[in-house]
Amino acid sequence: MSATLNVGLIGTGRIGKVHAEHLAHRIPRVKLSVISDMDEASAKTCAEKLGVHKVAKDYKQVLQDPAVNAVVICTPTDTHAQLIEEAAVAGKHIFCEKPIAQTLPKIDRAVGAVKKAGVKLQVGFNRRFDPNFARAKQAIASGEIGELHLLHIISRDPGPPPISYVKVSGGIFLDMTIHDFDMARFLAGSEVTEVYTAAAVLVDPAIGEAGDLDTAMVLLTFENGEIGCIDNSRKAVYGYDQRVEALGSAGAVQVSNNYPNSAVISDAANVKRDLPLNFFMDRYTESFMTEMNAFVSAVVENTPVPVTGHDGRMAVVVGLAARKSYDEHRPVKISEIG
Amino acid sequence: MSATLNVGLIGTGRIGKVHAEHLAHRIPRVKLSVISDMDEASAKTCAEKLGVHKVAKDYKQVLQDPAVNAVVICTPTDTHAQLIEEAAVAGKHIFCEKPIAQTLPKIDRAVGAVKKAGVKLQVGFNRRFDPNFARAKQAIASGEIGELHLLHIISRDPGPPPISYVKVSGGIFLDMTIHDFDMARFLAGSEVTEVYTAAAVLVDPAIGEAGDLDTAMVLLTFENGEIGCIDNSRKAVYGYDQRVEALGSAGAVQVSNNYPNSAVISDAANVKRDLPLNFFMDRYTESFMTEMNAFVSAVVENTPVPVTGHDGRMAVVVGLAARKSYDEHRPVKISEIG
Amino acid sequence: MSATLNVGLIGTGRIGKVHAEHLAHRIPRVKLSVISDMDEASAKTCAEKLGVHKVAKDYKQVLQDPAVNAVVICTPTDTHAQLIEEAAVAGKHIFCEKPIAQTLPKIDRAVGAVKKAGVKLQVGFNRRFDPNFARAKQAIASGEIGELHLLHIISRDPGPPPISYVKVSGGIFLDMTIHDFDMARFLAGSEVTEVYTAAAVLVDPAIGEAGDLDTAMVLLTFENGEIGCIDNSRKAVYGYDQRVEALGSAGAVQVSNNYPNSAVISDAANVKRDLPLNFFMDRYTESFMTEMNAFVSAVVENTPVPVTGHDGRMAVVVGLAARKSYDEHRPVKISEIG
Amino acid sequence: MSATLNVGLIGTGRIGKVHAEHLAHRIPRVKLSVISDMDEASAKTCAEKLGVHKVAKDYKQVLQDPAVNAVVICTPTDTHAQLIEEAAVAGKHIFCEKPIAQTLPKIDRAVGAVKKAGVKLQVGFNRRFDPNFARAKQAIASGEIGELHLLHIISRDPGPPPISYVKVSGGIFLDMTIHDFDMARFLAGSEVTEVYTAAAVLVDPAIGEAGDLDTAMVLLTFENGEIGCIDNSRKAVYGYDQRVEALGSAGAVQVSNNYPNSAVISDAANVKRDLPLNFFMDRYTESFMTEMNAFVSAVVENTPVPVTGHDGRMAVVVGLAARKSYDEHRPVKISEIG
Repeated sequence: MSATLNVGLIGTGRIGKVHAEHLAHRIPRVKLSVISDMDEASAKTCAEKLGVHKVAKDYKQVLQDPAVNAVVICTPTDTHAQLIEEAAVAGKHIFCEKPIAQTLPKIDRAVGAVKKAGVKLQVGFNRRFDPNFARAKQAIASGEIGELHLLHIISRDPGPPPISYVKVSGGIFLDMTIHDFDMARFLAGSEVTEVYTAAAVLVDPAIGEAGDLDTAMVLLTFENGEIGCIDNSRKAVYGYDQRVEALGSAGAVQVSNNYPNSAVISDAANVKRDLPLNFFMDRYTESFMTEMNAFVSAVVENTPVPVTGHDGRMAVVVGLAARKSYDEHRPVKISEIG
Repeated sequence: MSATLNVGLIGTGRIGKVHAEHLAHRIPRVKLSVISDMDEASAKTCAEKLGVHKVAKDYKQVLQDPAVNAVVICTPTDTHAQLIEEAAVAGKHIFCEKPIAQTLPKIDRAVGAVKKAGVKLQVGFNRRFDPNFARAKQAIASGEIGELHLLHIISRDPGPPPISYVKVSGGIFLDMTIHDFDMARFLAGSEVTEVYTAAAVLVDPAIGEAGDLDTAMVLLTFENGEIGCIDNSRKAVYGYDQRVEALGSAGAVQVSNNYPNSAVISDAANVKRDLPLNFFMDRYTESFMTEMNAFVSAVVENTPVPVTGHDGRMAVVVGLAARKSYDEHRPVKISEIG
Repeated sequence: MSATLNVGLIGTGRIGKVHAEHLAHRIPRVKLSVISDMDEASAKTCAEKLGVHKVAKDYKQVLQDPAVNAVVICTPTDTHAQLIEEAAVAGKHIFCEKPIAQTLPKIDRAVGAVKKAGVKLQVGFNRRFDPNFARAKQAIASGEIGELHLLHIISRDPGPPPISYVKVSGGIFLDMTIHDFDMARFLAGSEVTEVYTAAAVLVDPAIGEAGDLDTAMVLLTFENGEIGCIDNSRKAVYGYDQRVEALGSAGAVQVSNNYPNSAVISDAANVKRDLPLNFFMDRYTESFMTEMNAFVSAVVENTPVPVTGHDGRMAVVVGLAARKSYDEHRPVKISEIG
Repeated sequence: MSATLNVGLIGTGRIGKVHAEHLAHRIPRVKLSVISDMDEASAKTCAEKLGVHKVAKDYKQVLQDPAVNAVVICTPTDTHAQLIEEAAVAGKHIFCEKPIAQTLPKIDRAVGAVKKAGVKLQVGFNRRFDPNFARAKQAIASGEIGELHLLHIISRDPGPPPISYVKVSGGIFLDMTIHDFDMARFLAGSEVTEVYTAAAVLVDPAIGEAGDLDTAMVLLTFENGEIGCIDNSRKAVYGYDQRVEALGSAGAVQVSNNYPNSAVISDAANVKRDLPLNFFMDRYTESFMTEMNAFVSAVVENTPVPVTGHDGRMAVVVGLAARKSYDEHRPVKISEIG
């Protein structure tokens, strides 16, 4: 593989724009050579702003472009699996936003095609690349806190998405907790074997009417015997709450939220500070660049990608188990799902 | 009731000595008039040090003493229920260390005797009186964080007790988590309706051989729909880890550990501080005095005690349910226990 | 010297009551045998509450009492020097509240009498015994942060004292900063050689009209070349602000305020906590007991006291230099004072 | 002025590269149209990487280019004044790295030329744009902490520069503290009227042999009566220490260091975290982009620049006064300097 990777980006929505800017200007050894979007105007605007000369309305043009070595898929979730498959058949390496799909047959077909084609597939679990979570991982993986015993993941959104979105989201466990299931597997370095879910509708009854939940705790048991708990809420009025802590035999690690500044103000009533960063693009800015850098490196240097198709699949498997546990009010083994 | 309460203290072990000193010198409106211990020498030493003139080898002398209005029971756990019953029959108000007993029939008999006698019974769940937890309670009860949605209790010991103790302890849920079950009910202001336990032996295999567990997460569902998680470990190498956090509809509250000092030291390797307080008597010093103060006030002013026999009973009920959940590997309703 | 020290306490005002309770109940190897106050009723109330049998209206009775080995002087400042001298002549060991006096001739006479009599004198610079400051001292003295380079002392009162008090206080440098001058010498382990003062009346013009200042920064130069800064204000609306930080060649140490609890509350506006402890008796509770313990130990074991007459003198010397620097608008050498 | 500013960048050293990347890709309404460096290869490399088509060995080509509306000067300090003057004469708006010059006549001539030409000049005091310091400024300027009384600026480098640099640096006060003098004026919103300096050579004797100092505290008095203290050291082994705190009549604000992550690790010895960010380009990343954004906005919208030539001048004036105070061992009025 040449030292510079030619990348085609498909999908110029919110996250697509972020990846496009990083690929265009901020990541070494890569050239963003074509930008594609069904909404051609969106693709053009994005391309012009970044000095990219080729634009495609149809993503198939990207896949057929012999100059393109890899694609970055930022289209809506329900198209991911199909695009992965086609890209794999076309021999392109693939970075795809999470989740691969919301059902296992689709995921298996896409991952199978990747395997058959021998291309690389990295799934966009960006949080692994966040400096806080990466440091927690290091503390666990390096033995700094000994053997892992207990794991907590707090993951709360500043506010619920619109009900229209909730209805097509796949449910809280596949839409929101999926990041935490990946984080749990990532931090534990071990597979989840069983889940038990306690969940409720406490934030907005309309979420319940849409068949979903907005507040949950999911207990996880891991292969190695560790126990974990994921805490989710669709609404933390104080902002985006993203923390983990882990207890090991030799210590503990705890990561806290990120703030817009470090100022602490003391007045006659309180000692206080501004709220934590509220929006995932502010909170996780750095992680998006780091994950793409890692993808480019993996392709250019032909090393394993840090987040695989298997990782993408397992997060969905655990998510399906979590919902099943809630529905059947019992602990569910991961092996029941697939 | 006269403005000064005459108290007899029974049992001069570790916690008995703490209560004795508080009663002798630091709590208003109370007189420690007699100290009793089967080990008469221990009672005498304690009494002399505190300027208390009466000593009894047999606790029955205390119960028969007409000058005594109330007793403080600090004897071993397996004697609590019997002493409560006898003290109630003797018409004495009662402060008793937790737990009342490890089985429900004993508890019910003791609490029944108290009810029949019309005396007051306060159970020694001292953590409710800790300034940190009391502030968390205030944040929840006052509506400062809105309606409670999610609750976490982290409760880890610095190290496991001797195996000889583990064998007679009643198991981790009745010996250690019992404090957390009480804390959960206290903070939520609502009864637990169901528990699910994931637990393991990760600290010391000998604990498992003794039939007990050393690492656990217990999911709690409350009457009002809130969900809680208790995190227990018998061994946190960094010290006594005692924290809670709660998410409500209008905010969150989080309490952290207590430290021997506030010094932060930055050197060429780290920014660091000394470990948190390691021993429960250091960590909870203030709470022991505050709870006794509250007991004395409740008796002298004839107001309800802040921790009742019902509270003492329910913590045991939840503890029994937690173990049953582990044994049967399923969620257990509190109503299954009693 | 017998293993139990018989102490007479003189002066039952606010701080006298604190010392009396500690001496009566909480410090080993000491007996509070007599309490004295010109206001005999106050002495009696205090004695009764603590079970002390002897009371004296006239402090001379205490000094003449052959059973008394040591005296604790808690009378108004302007009587300290005279009482120290008389106690020394009477052969009693002496603990005296700070300052010894506000003028050097008085101090020198008192300290001279102590020296001549060969008794021990400890001055009540209690802050040295505060766990935070003691830990900072340890970090500096042990070499944990290398050689000291820079020192900051932040010392702010929650609010100014009444103007009537300001008028007789001796001025901010002898009344308030004196604690900080002692802290500076204590932490640096080196004498101050020069001071430069910038000060103003920013809190209350009435303080200026009374001839005093309410806001100040005092730069200190030490024998060993270190540089320090004391920051004083008579009014920090958020509470009692008592911090230090030190930079050394191998690191830094920073101590922060003490809080009534560790609860952090996040709501839709802020992440916040309750104000720091507001009153010096709450903030420094532990230090008062520790300093008295140290005094008793020094006498019983015949070891040097931890805060000497020289320490008491030097804090006043630096205070006088600080005011002179302000008055003459120039750096003032300590050797100019005495 | 057209909605897009054409900028020529002069000097492609460390900070020049940072500004170039921001101008090329990350700041709206600006086009980096030419890059100049005496080292033409450096200019070319930089231009190619950023897709800039014009390169100039001689900065005069930039000044003569009619397409260029503004210049960004990132050349060595001793060329700033001359370049500012020439750019002003050429009618270009100017962003210039600090300091303008190290002597007042040079500064006055440059600022005079700017004034005469009617162009805009912004000086690169980037720290004003750091989110922490900007929040402190807001707390002070908005009245959130009332009227300012006391100000502390802690500003310590991770390690001293090479002695070769020290010799040409202009001394600690013009090289390092100059940022803090600007910060002091910025935060106070008031001019410094007098300084008093205590300083020493404690880090490295070679710095003293080079005629400079490495450790200093500078007391500042402001027009409005506030008092401030700047704390400088050339060596904080734990990293780049950049903090301020301010006391006002209604509260206080305190900003702390920035860290690479929020992970706190507790082990059997300590509760600890990684060291603060160590390098000014990491610590102040965001501020460099924000200041350039502000410059572009000021030119495009024809509004006042946020950091003026007067600001650039005053920081040097205070720096000269600080050194004079040290040399003459007395407080020095700013009016003595100019």
